[in-house]
Amino acid sequence: MTNPDLTITEVRLTPILISDPPLLNTQGVHQPYTPRLVVEVVTADGVTGIGETYGDTKYLDLAHPLADALPGHSVADLNGLFILAGQVCGDPAGTSDSVDVGGLRGVQTADKLRLSVISGFEVACLDALGKSLGLPVHALLGGKVRDSVEYSAYLFYRWAEHPAGQEPKDDWGAAVDPAGVVEQARRFARDYGFTSFKLKGGVFPPDEEIAAIRALAEAFPGQPLRLDPNGAWSVETSLYVAEQLGDALEYLEDPTSSTARMAEVAAGTEVPLATNMCVTTFPEIAEAFTKGAVQVVLSDHHYWGGLRNTRELAAICRTFGVGLSMHSNTHLGISLAAMTHVAATVPNLDYACDSHYPWQTEDIITIPHTFTDGRLTVSDAPGLGIELDRVALRALHQRWLEDDGTMRDRDDAAAMRKADPDWVTPAVPRW
Amino acid sequence: MTNPDLTITEVRLTPILISDPPLLNTQGVHQPYTPRLVVEVVTADGVTGIGETYGDTKYLDLAHPLADALPGHSVADLNGLFILAGQVCGDPAGTSDSVDVGGLRGVQTADKLRLSVISGFEVACLDALGKSLGLPVHALLGGKVRDSVEYSAYLFYRWAEHPAGQEPKDDWGAAVDPAGVVEQARRFARDYGFTSFKLKGGVFPPDEEIAAIRALAEAFPGQPLRLDPNGAWSVETSLYVAEQLGDALEYLEDPTSSTARMAEVAAGTEVPLATNMCVTTFPEIAEAFTKGAVQVVLSDHHYWGGLRNTRELAAICRTFGVGLSMHSNTHLGISLAAMTHVAATVPNLDYACDSHYPWQTEDIITIPHTFTDGRLTVSDAPGLGIELDRVALRALHQRWLEDDGTMRDRDDAAAMRKADPDWVTPAVPRW
Repeated sequence: MTNPDLTITEVRLTPILISDPPLLNTQGVHQPYTPRLVVEVVTADGVTGIGETYGDTKYLDLAHPLADALPGHSVADLNGLFILAGQVCGDPAGTSDSVDVGGLRGVQTADKLRLSVISGFEVACLDALGKSLGLPVHALLGGKVRDSVEYSAYLFYRWAEHPAGQEPKDDWGAAVDPAGVVEQARRFARDYGFTSFKLKGGVFPPDEEIAAIRALAEAFPGQPLRLDPNGAWSVETSLYVAEQLGDALEYLEDPTSSTARMAEVAAGTEVPLATNMCVTTFPEIAEAFTKGAVQVVLSDHHYWGGLRNTRELAAICRTFGVGLSMHSNTHLGISLAAMTHVAATVPNLDYACDSHYPWQTEDIITIPHTFTDGRLTVSDAPGLGIELDRVALRALHQRWLEDDGTMRDRDDAAAMRKADPDWVTPAVPRW
Repeated sequence: MTNPDLTITEVRLTPILISDPPLLNTQGVHQPYTPRLVVEVVTADGVTGIGETYGDTKYLDLAHPLADALPGHSVADLNGLFILAGQVCGDPAGTSDSVDVGGLRGVQTADKLRLSVISGFEVACLDALGKSLGLPVHALLGGKVRDSVEYSAYLFYRWAEHPAGQEPKDDWGAAVDPAGVVEQARRFARDYGFTSFKLKGGVFPPDEEIAAIRALAEAFPGQPLRLDPNGAWSVETSLYVAEQLGDALEYLEDPTSSTARMAEVAAGTEVPLATNMCVTTFPEIAEAFTKGAVQVVLSDHHYWGGLRNTRELAAICRTFGVGLSMHSNTHLGISLAAMTHVAATVPNLDYACDSHYPWQTEDIITIPHTFTDGRLTVSDAPGLGIELDRVALRALHQRWLEDDGTMRDRDDAAAMRKADPDWVTPAVPRW
């Protein structure tokens, strides 16, 4: 046989804006549209691999020099991708070891921004490599250890519509109390078969969210429940909620901000603490694991620099007896395919993964993913096993082009000010 | 293009006995011959991949059921290899969490024995996969980040000949004092270009070994030196040696046995402590890293379960600020090729790797490796980039077949009793 030419000859970056419902969190509300970046990597043989990552301006600023530098490299040279990015991306302006404006993505260091960008390229390279070699991405990661991956229902407090009558609209209706949350959960269970449920909290005073979890526990007895206030609570409030819900929660996610406060909470409760805020980078692991601050890391392959780094994170968690599951920010079908491939290869995937995917009404792949019994089947087709829908991609890129700049950088607080002009990002702890 | 058929159709196991010089360590002396196992994995396309691992009986006992079960699986299904081994190998009799008879390979748990066996199969699968896909093994591990890998000279106290006139013989002569050690080092430097030197210690009283390192420091001023008594010393002796040699040593390797004692030594000296004894398995990492017991892990891809696990170990070390290098037991060219491929892909390979290879006068590959300036060039040929010498393999297997059983299980103390009938394995700490 003739070996494929794996040399990258072209890289295409397509920023897009995708519809997002008015989902509430402690910082504000999701904008009507949120930015994503689609990365295409083309090999000398004409094979195209696709990846997806965050699309805010600060990510695009790093993606462009990497895209310019990549032709000539091999899609198999994934270790080299990190070296190249370190050489050409530079340190993005204005980053530091502080929590970002949105506050929901954990620390925002130059390294982490770069890794988030790399993740889109890494997935595109893996997709192209797999297509070139006739192997699914999971085989490039050593092979699947399960044939399907379980996801959980991602419940949100939400409004029926975006403020000020903004598009887009959907038919989910509002959910701002326990009854609304249970109704939403029933639809998730009915339409997708999810059997575990996570509620995004930090929106209402803790007692109201405790009541919502209690209502879920009553509606779905014995099924795994999770609550995630995105670090909005004090240590005392966190311990109070843990005590109130200890019998109902599979884990409590980021009740409070910072590793030190998480460690305090962990020391005071038997409820496992999960995080996708205080441990989102490799440098944060040693302190958190040594202090016992977290019992479950919710990996996000974007944050961690791709699928291979996610497997390394999994090895670290396994070695230190820390659980692993997966976090999700708003994303489309490329990232969901990538998550599913890597999740299929990780032996110690201890919990159902999060995904925003059911909330998204648009996609850029020809055949959207379908959850059955709360699970996605792992594709054995070459690469990610999905195809880009170029018509859809063009339309969402056109939306990005036509945007006046207000949606190109996600800002949940700014979106909230459409409803409440006096809204400011709440200080932490909020309660 | 037609995709290759990666299905395994045949697995061949060939136990061999290889010549070994009379190298001394704290347990005794190397036998004239030592067992290794060569693993061949053949795919449906007729591609053969080769691997090498320990060949003592207890390893063979695990390798046979795995070899029987493997046909039908894909060489790409490397995660599945571990699952399969867990299913078919069973727990080898007589293993426990205790140090083994030889005492030099660290804990000897059922898991570790199984991983050591798997490593030979994993390397063979990677070799076959690379050959099938036209990719070097390093590319299957994400690509090399360096074009050559540095090794260090592995100095041994030794006799000129094996006791009782046993074959084989070589022309290195004896090295039992500082002058002999320096002479040996000069030959290593001259013939192979090594610029860093490790002395296997624990053979003579510490002051004699201190004198040998001092002599090396004088002969090779400013060049990296290491001393490894295989855990033979007490905490007090370790601290004494560290104080005496603090200015000369790059690191001190396993001065004392057990994580607790290593932590005590580490707390009392600035000399970094390296290990291939108290951290040789994933379950040992958390305690050792949390206590700061070791500053450098000397990985051995056999112990850790192969090249991909070695990369995971590297990620863990990187995350916890622990250095990484590579350990070596007596091995041939297949394992050296495997070491070189994985070493080429690890960004945080902080030190020159160990290798016994220059001591071996026999090999089973057609073109033996050649050290130049102390380095091996990383092969870009498909697979490991080496070919099996079947004539040599048959000859060494014939030696194994004809052995009366005395050499099939390495026992350095038994070998020592040929010279000293009263020799018993020294209790630890010896000094």
